[in-house]
Amino acid sequence: MTQTMSALTYYGANDVRVEQRPLPEILEPTDAIVRITTTTICGTDLGIAHGKNPEIESVAREKTGEWTGRILGHEGIGVVEAVGSAVTAFEPGDKVLVSCVSRCGSCENCQKQLYSHCQNGGSWILGYMIDGTLAEYVRTPFADNSLYHLPEDLDKEVAVFLSDALPTGHEIGVQYGEVAPGKDVLIVGAGPVGMGVLLTSQFYSPSTIIVVDFDDNRLEMAKTMGATHTVNPSKDDVDAIVADITDGRGVDTAIEAVGLPATWKTCSDNIKEGGNIAVVGVHGKPVDFELQSMWIKNLKITTGLVNANTTGMLMKAVQNSHLPIKSLATHHFTWDQLEEAWDTFSNAAESKAMKVIIDA
Amino acid sequence: MTQTMSALTYYGANDVRVEQRPLPEILEPTDAIVRITTTTICGTDLGIAHGKNPEIESVAREKTGEWTGRILGHEGIGVVEAVGSAVTAFEPGDKVLVSCVSRCGSCENCQKQLYSHCQNGGSWILGYMIDGTLAEYVRTPFADNSLYHLPEDLDKEVAVFLSDALPTGHEIGVQYGEVAPGKDVLIVGAGPVGMGVLLTSQFYSPSTIIVVDFDDNRLEMAKTMGATHTVNPSKDDVDAIVADITDGRGVDTAIEAVGLPATWKTCSDNIKEGGNIAVVGVHGKPVDFELQSMWIKNLKITTGLVNANTTGMLMKAVQNSHLPIKSLATHHFTWDQLEEAWDTFSNAAESKAMKVIIDA
Amino acid sequence: MTQTMSALTYYGANDVRVEQRPLPEILEPTDAIVRITTTTICGTDLGIAHGKNPEIESVAREKTGEWTGRILGHEGIGVVEAVGSAVTAFEPGDKVLVSCVSRCGSCENCQKQLYSHCQNGGSWILGYMIDGTLAEYVRTPFADNSLYHLPEDLDKEVAVFLSDALPTGHEIGVQYGEVAPGKDVLIVGAGPVGMGVLLTSQFYSPSTIIVVDFDDNRLEMAKTMGATHTVNPSKDDVDAIVADITDGRGVDTAIEAVGLPATWKTCSDNIKEGGNIAVVGVHGKPVDFELQSMWIKNLKITTGLVNANTTGMLMKAVQNSHLPIKSLATHHFTWDQLEEAWDTFSNAAESKAMKVIIDA
Amino acid sequence: MTQTMSALTYYGANDVRVEQRPLPEILEPTDAIVRITTTTICGTDLGIAHGKNPEIESVAREKTGEWTGRILGHEGIGVVEAVGSAVTAFEPGDKVLVSCVSRCGSCENCQKQLYSHCQNGGSWILGYMIDGTLAEYVRTPFADNSLYHLPEDLDKEVAVFLSDALPTGHEIGVQYGEVAPGKDVLIVGAGPVGMGVLLTSQFYSPSTIIVVDFDDNRLEMAKTMGATHTVNPSKDDVDAIVADITDGRGVDTAIEAVGLPATWKTCSDNIKEGGNIAVVGVHGKPVDFELQSMWIKNLKITTGLVNANTTGMLMKAVQNSHLPIKSLATHHFTWDQLEEAWDTFSNAAESKAMKVIIDA
Repeated sequence: MTQTMSALTYYGANDVRVEQRPLPEILEPTDAIVRITTTTICGTDLGIAHGKNPEIESVAREKTGEWTGRILGHEGIGVVEAVGSAVTAFEPGDKVLVSCVSRCGSCENCQKQLYSHCQNGGSWILGYMIDGTLAEYVRTPFADNSLYHLPEDLDKEVAVFLSDALPTGHEIGVQYGEVAPGKDVLIVGAGPVGMGVLLTSQFYSPSTIIVVDFDDNRLEMAKTMGATHTVNPSKDDVDAIVADITDGRGVDTAIEAVGLPATWKTCSDNIKEGGNIAVVGVHGKPVDFELQSMWIKNLKITTGLVNANTTGMLMKAVQNSHLPIKSLATHHFTWDQLEEAWDTFSNAAESKAMKVIIDA
Repeated sequence: MTQTMSALTYYGANDVRVEQRPLPEILEPTDAIVRITTTTICGTDLGIAHGKNPEIESVAREKTGEWTGRILGHEGIGVVEAVGSAVTAFEPGDKVLVSCVSRCGSCENCQKQLYSHCQNGGSWILGYMIDGTLAEYVRTPFADNSLYHLPEDLDKEVAVFLSDALPTGHEIGVQYGEVAPGKDVLIVGAGPVGMGVLLTSQFYSPSTIIVVDFDDNRLEMAKTMGATHTVNPSKDDVDAIVADITDGRGVDTAIEAVGLPATWKTCSDNIKEGGNIAVVGVHGKPVDFELQSMWIKNLKITTGLVNANTTGMLMKAVQNSHLPIKSLATHHFTWDQLEEAWDTFSNAAESKAMKVIIDA
Repeated sequence: MTQTMSALTYYGANDVRVEQRPLPEILEPTDAIVRITTTTICGTDLGIAHGKNPEIESVAREKTGEWTGRILGHEGIGVVEAVGSAVTAFEPGDKVLVSCVSRCGSCENCQKQLYSHCQNGGSWILGYMIDGTLAEYVRTPFADNSLYHLPEDLDKEVAVFLSDALPTGHEIGVQYGEVAPGKDVLIVGAGPVGMGVLLTSQFYSPSTIIVVDFDDNRLEMAKTMGATHTVNPSKDDVDAIVADITDGRGVDTAIEAVGLPATWKTCSDNIKEGGNIAVVGVHGKPVDFELQSMWIKNLKITTGLVNANTTGMLMKAVQNSHLPIKSLATHHFTWDQLEEAWDTFSNAAESKAMKVIIDA
Repeated sequence: MTQTMSALTYYGANDVRVEQRPLPEILEPTDAIVRITTTTICGTDLGIAHGKNPEIESVAREKTGEWTGRILGHEGIGVVEAVGSAVTAFEPGDKVLVSCVSRCGSCENCQKQLYSHCQNGGSWILGYMIDGTLAEYVRTPFADNSLYHLPEDLDKEVAVFLSDALPTGHEIGVQYGEVAPGKDVLIVGAGPVGMGVLLTSQFYSPSTIIVVDFDDNRLEMAKTMGATHTVNPSKDDVDAIVADITDGRGVDTAIEAVGLPATWKTCSDNIKEGGNIAVVGVHGKPVDFELQSMWIKNLKITTGLVNANTTGMLMKAVQNSHLPIKSLATHHFTWDQLEEAWDTFSNAAESKAMKVIIDA
């Protein structure tokens, strides 16, 4: 084992560096150290890099009195290198999936499976409140509850999407949105999360999946991944097309996977009475909630951060699925190309990247 | 049977008259004619009277080419006088409850129990799209699906609240809000609908029921009806009190029973992660939906018009309940006092009326 | 319109005749008369023919004082010829699906969507308590609630299975059995109902579907229809194979689609703790319920007759599905071959018939 | 802290002794040691004493090569004395409730909240596979997941029933049985578990609760605890009385809380179509499952061991409840009366004991 490792570290807005860092160590008896073998980058990592989360530095300073940067990343698979004294389900050598959500398993919220709001220091902390997976090694807290044994024959490029992209799409989009056989579904946003919604919604056999995005390349990709219809609002009238497809009724489920007032509006404008609007996008400002027309429509509107409570279920489901999950991985890199991987994902419009794979 | 009847009729904004009207007649084979024995007035009736629903006149003119006023009211119990040829479940002489929601039972929405959006001319139409129950007789469409046999021993002043107040509170507030044993519940608004929520929420044994209203008299009444805490925002800081009661966590379920941006805000400010906001109020303008802070909270926000799909269940539940449902009836009148009843309910702040009972 | 029609009529055990019968007429204002264009035969029809339902004759005699035989059949699509005065959703010329379950829509059970136990003379009555669909014309009671408009482009050989085979498999097998993505499912019995389960379970993406039957031909067919594993108990040890597939855990959902003590035992022997056993088969005698070992297993065991409350949902789902539903139709006949169709279906072991199609 | 403690220990069939035992010690980093301040005895303890669980000795011998007796008991509240290195939610001095179910929180079943089937050595193990709570001190595994902080003001004689009696009744009887407002409920068996069902069912406001038992004293007690009707089968015809109460329909939910073929039969004979039979009793032999008549009834039949996944919810619910939970505690003892407490509970028919309280 080397004494340092390469890592992609955030120091401040627009200051992200690939650098050498000390190896992580076991701090709590429930920790594990995982050697990352495959990882990927999330839009949230870009958001942090763009300065959207200054709390990272302020919390670190408050807790430790100093600021030495934060290793990004909350997705990845790898091999267990070491475990704390209280870890019983894993041992060195085990091949594991790292969940983006760490959970104590004991607090009121964890007992309700609301792991995204763990009250004992869990939830989404990797690559945010503690160092993450965009490094050769990572310390994973609450290892017994937050790692998963990887089946031998699961493709690593499917497995790595079980950290975040697929559970987020499935839980916050598909399950909260109550997608079911025969329903008409609208997905607004064809980025990685929208694609996670698109893929996992097909586990429930909706009749129609309409995907909306401004990027024709992504719409094209959505088609190959199961969208029954695609619409580019810069060219076509979304409301008119949805009305046409649904006999003027609107969709049963509208899933917002961008995080803007305009995409919220597309959802709320096209939802049928009795329908679901599932907000998956990360929003930065308030939206108008047109209760004067929507109070009477018997809607269910949901929001949330992934709980990763369906990770085990999805791990089984993807093993026998014919869905083109692996196609999410559009670009491939090795550790020494970490910077190139970051640049490629940062410039997705040009590079046409959906998810980038980084292999050890 | 007399040839005319007295009725409370809406002619336009602030033009509501007690007048003599011709008796209703069977128009469709699925109709019934019911002689009203006890009825009551809803806040929605006042809204119509205040001019909030000009569509009543325009739709009538469009359909019939004329405008002869609309008899208000969608609540009541009575005795069946006549039934159409296709009515099989009721016959003249049956004592019945009239549901505020008429339903065809056959359309896509009715088959989903989304009766509030019946696609064949049902939903809330009584006292709105057709003449209503504030009259000696009423024609009730889809009688087999929209009337209920009244148990002999059910108090008429409990029964009459099964038309609307209790089902609305129960379905749109309590059920959509997922009230359950041990939960902390916030009810914003202590009018008749808020009281319907307060009463029916107790069927599910929440730990805490905090009721918020500007009217001390109504708060006092809420206390006697089961509220564990009451708050008057003109005197006290709601957020601080909720935080105090809930250890700073917020409530599990917040139920909005007024219909204003301010009451929506009280709900959204005090909801715990993983909680429910159930919008029961009738809203006239958009509200701010603070998605920048709420997207991450794993909330479920619901809206809707009553389906009256729990009316039968509630009819059974109230028969063995110790809840002070009858106390909703604060004032009593007879048919010849119809105008006085209307005035009393219109001036609830002074009269301290919650629901007024009008007996034949 | 001719004055008589050909029909397949039951007169008593092993006395089924193809004969000329008078045309049906509207009896109730909610009736419709449907000209059958495509129909099929169910195992239940065979059961009646074999004498399992002597109540058919006794009830008829009790009600009418005579016994003139019963036209069998409860599946079919056709064209509306006439409607009663209270029918509003259909008119002559409409292409419709006839549901195997008739429903009043108004009784306590219908209001709970428990249409299979309609208290006003509905439920499964076609080809049982009243004349059925194995005739050129059929009277369908409660037409507004019991017929479905057929989409123009729906294959008639898919549509006809929406009368019974698919809803029964879906509701009593798949929904009651809580099939979900990633689950392991065992289906015992590969007859038409088992095949309905097999097909509709795939709407929910289970990981494993193990089908058990004694008929290799049917197992072969199950493979082409989506079974991941098949077992013939005359050759192989079902319990050992299930244990092997599930790491010794047993399945999440076991669906009994035969109706014998032995097939119940196969289900109860192979169910995992926390699992579901869904009984779809029609049983003729008690089974042993091994509560001494099963009380502790946190099981959910369900039984039931189809409610046809998911017929509309399935009609939408099948339109966009790639499932080989049409392959259920193994043999094709015309009206003048009705007797041949009956013989072919009666001798399924030899004829290898799954479902027979009879076209007008 | 003394070096030995008194404990009630099982050595074999009808060989239960109060003796001095060494104090328990922390064995795993997730363990806690709790000093018991109040405990009680369960019917399961009696069953063990009567020889129903010989596996206790055989498993112990297999694991440790010896047999030194097993301290009984799985209910109790107390004070934390010591915690293992990985315990973070509790510290010495904390007042806690000990759940009857220990859970790792990490295995497949625990992640599904099926804690009763924990795959890492949890589930019901206290007083069964490891020493239990009928002692001055107890070692509690998986402490973070299996202990609960006790609210200061919760009556200890209510709290102690949160270990087992109330969660078992609530989860396996009431929740699995889908008790809801307005339903008719039949509870067969008025022992401590039946009483737990009776009490917790009232959180959901059923209309009717019919309790059946052979012991008039217990029926009397059931009346004071909320039963609307009681029946002693030695004097009256249960089926006739249920039919009378339910207009011949049967009950919506029947809860079996004894564990005998006869009590199962009482449930299956009196269940309405679409109803629930919840088996809570511990059964020793198979029962007849009359599928020839029940296959068509759309029933849901459930079994199970408590998961204790509603313990937190119940702890909140009981704090604001007016239910006479404390009345379950019919007899009171101190530690030095442990033997007397055991004898009193063992002879419940004579002593009229429901639950006995043993205080430190």
